[in-house]
Amino acid sequence: MIDNPYYSPEVHKDFTLVSIGRLELEEGGVIPDCSLAVRTWGTLNAAKDNAILIPTWYSGTHQIWADAYVGPGHALDPEKYFIVCVNQIGNGLSTSPHNATDPSVSMSRFPHVRIGDDVVAQERLLREHFGIDRLALVVGGSMGAQQTYEWAVRFPDKVLRAAPIAGTARNTPHDFLFTEALNEQIWSDPGWNGGEYASHEEVHDGLVRHAHIWAIMGFSTEFWKQERWAALGFTSKEAFLGDFLEPYFTAMDPNDLLAMAWKWQRGDVSRHTGGDLAAALGRITAAMFVMPISEDMFFPVRDCAAEQSLVPGSELRVVEDVSGHLGLFAIDSQFIPQIDRHLGELLAIPR
Amino acid sequence: MIDNPYYSPEVHKDFTLVSIGRLELEEGGVIPDCSLAVRTWGTLNAAKDNAILIPTWYSGTHQIWADAYVGPGHALDPEKYFIVCVNQIGNGLSTSPHNATDPSVSMSRFPHVRIGDDVVAQERLLREHFGIDRLALVVGGSMGAQQTYEWAVRFPDKVLRAAPIAGTARNTPHDFLFTEALNEQIWSDPGWNGGEYASHEEVHDGLVRHAHIWAIMGFSTEFWKQERWAALGFTSKEAFLGDFLEPYFTAMDPNDLLAMAWKWQRGDVSRHTGGDLAAALGRITAAMFVMPISEDMFFPVRDCAAEQSLVPGSELRVVEDVSGHLGLFAIDSQFIPQIDRHLGELLAIPR
Repeated sequence: MIDNPYYSPEVHKDFTLVSIGRLELEEGGVIPDCSLAVRTWGTLNAAKDNAILIPTWYSGTHQIWADAYVGPGHALDPEKYFIVCVNQIGNGLSTSPHNATDPSVSMSRFPHVRIGDDVVAQERLLREHFGIDRLALVVGGSMGAQQTYEWAVRFPDKVLRAAPIAGTARNTPHDFLFTEALNEQIWSDPGWNGGEYASHEEVHDGLVRHAHIWAIMGFSTEFWKQERWAALGFTSKEAFLGDFLEPYFTAMDPNDLLAMAWKWQRGDVSRHTGGDLAAALGRITAAMFVMPISEDMFFPVRDCAAEQSLVPGSELRVVEDVSGHLGLFAIDSQFIPQIDRHLGELLAIPR
Repeated sequence: MIDNPYYSPEVHKDFTLVSIGRLELEEGGVIPDCSLAVRTWGTLNAAKDNAILIPTWYSGTHQIWADAYVGPGHALDPEKYFIVCVNQIGNGLSTSPHNATDPSVSMSRFPHVRIGDDVVAQERLLREHFGIDRLALVVGGSMGAQQTYEWAVRFPDKVLRAAPIAGTARNTPHDFLFTEALNEQIWSDPGWNGGEYASHEEVHDGLVRHAHIWAIMGFSTEFWKQERWAALGFTSKEAFLGDFLEPYFTAMDPNDLLAMAWKWQRGDVSRHTGGDLAAALGRITAAMFVMPISEDMFFPVRDCAAEQSLVPGSELRVVEDVSGHLGLFAIDSQFIPQIDRHLGELLAIPR
């Protein structure tokens, strides 16, 4: 366990750590005492049928959902719904390589965790801690979309509606290679030291390079051409990199990022059906809107549409945003209004 | 100067080194004795009006043009044209960091070279060595397209036809960042040692990572999804990386790649017109087909089409290829037939 101030209540507000106990993992490892960092909004009604689950994306936490997606006036409205955002295992708030107190899973000894392990952990949390058996909606972006698909395939009876945003049910080969390139930026930093560094600051250079790979794949060619960073208050692309994207990632823990990346690379609901993706997606009974971002460079609309066509009764709802994948940060003023419209219409579907 | 067997006549066949003497560079440096590696096909006719110039792309040489683009039956037909492929400065065959014998420009002391310097060098070579004053066609891919645009803007009276394939007249911000990410793979290898390594093999790890960035940007998401590497005889994506893409780049010289990258990042014909791209492209009198590749991830059709609209009388000819940018390697069986059709029609335009 090492200290990292980024993963603190000062930066990530209003969350609670909930232990779900021992978690046995698909790959054979064990997290002896798995804690999930949970943020909730609103009140669970007596019928316990107004719950919404939000799983988080790579490098993300509940905070972006608090800042941009959830609140009065949004589709994710705490006045109507009990909204639970569960930080994924390895994201630095929930049990993760850098914060694991049990030496058997600390730092380089953190076991391989799969998307399915997160979903099993979340289901246990919701059932045992909140008494929730069914979800009005599961919605997540990127790796959150991977978890959303996993929920809808693994627990079809528990998911009434689902909205995977900018992510896929089965990770693509290109996406695997992209994520591997992110990892290599960390692995190649001598300060990483096989995962046994004393501070994330020893891996600063690798994390800077990692940020630069995000710059070219996370944003679209058009984001840079149109200088969309100006809308965020930056005066040059160099300032956007040096004052936002680099500090954003260099604050994070390298092993935590690697743990999430391993999961991301292997997200695949067809593990439930012997590799048959159509069969896996055919299990889904949730009302589903598949919501790719129009200019996404690594979860392109084409890949998402191909999966959507395999989900019975689903709809393809493309979110138009020139920003690309990291439009998920709600950079463009028209991003959240589109999310609200689609999620509002999805939530209005009777179930 | 260090030895590297990749840049030998055994690997790159049938070229001649031609000295064009002292080359003063736009950025203020000097190459005391600049040699250009030249491959020719066919015979210059008495009127000297059947010459075609091919400048080369990043990491490329004349060899791919010999292997895939030039020959009887192709538009680039040696029976009709005198075809001159000039390897760009820094590509390892022409004067480059690793092969420069003059210690003032060897290795880390190699000066900054611009696209314009290459074009000036090529013009001198053609005029002084071959007596060629006008070109029936300039055609190049990627950085070769940058040089093609530079020719058409800098020497409009000398270029009758021009075909920039998969490249732009003014490099985009995204492209700059992509290239910087390639560079960082080299810079971050301790073996690079500020450019003063004893062998390119000392930078093996950085060159492998460099190859991996090419894997995710050089090929399209669909190339990987459709497993198009199978058409090249590989049995897995791992084999395609380990047996083709990694050896391809690890054979090369790191400083040479960096010299080319510096040029690529700063390609910009609007340097001739105070930053006014429309004015620069408006100078072009060549018949021009602008030929982006449909699935190119970093020279997207959109960017190429925007420039084409500024070139008087030009046509946009999109080359359909799911491979992406590295479709330039003529991976798909339908790639060269499209090139031949477009170049054939361009060459048939009376001038």
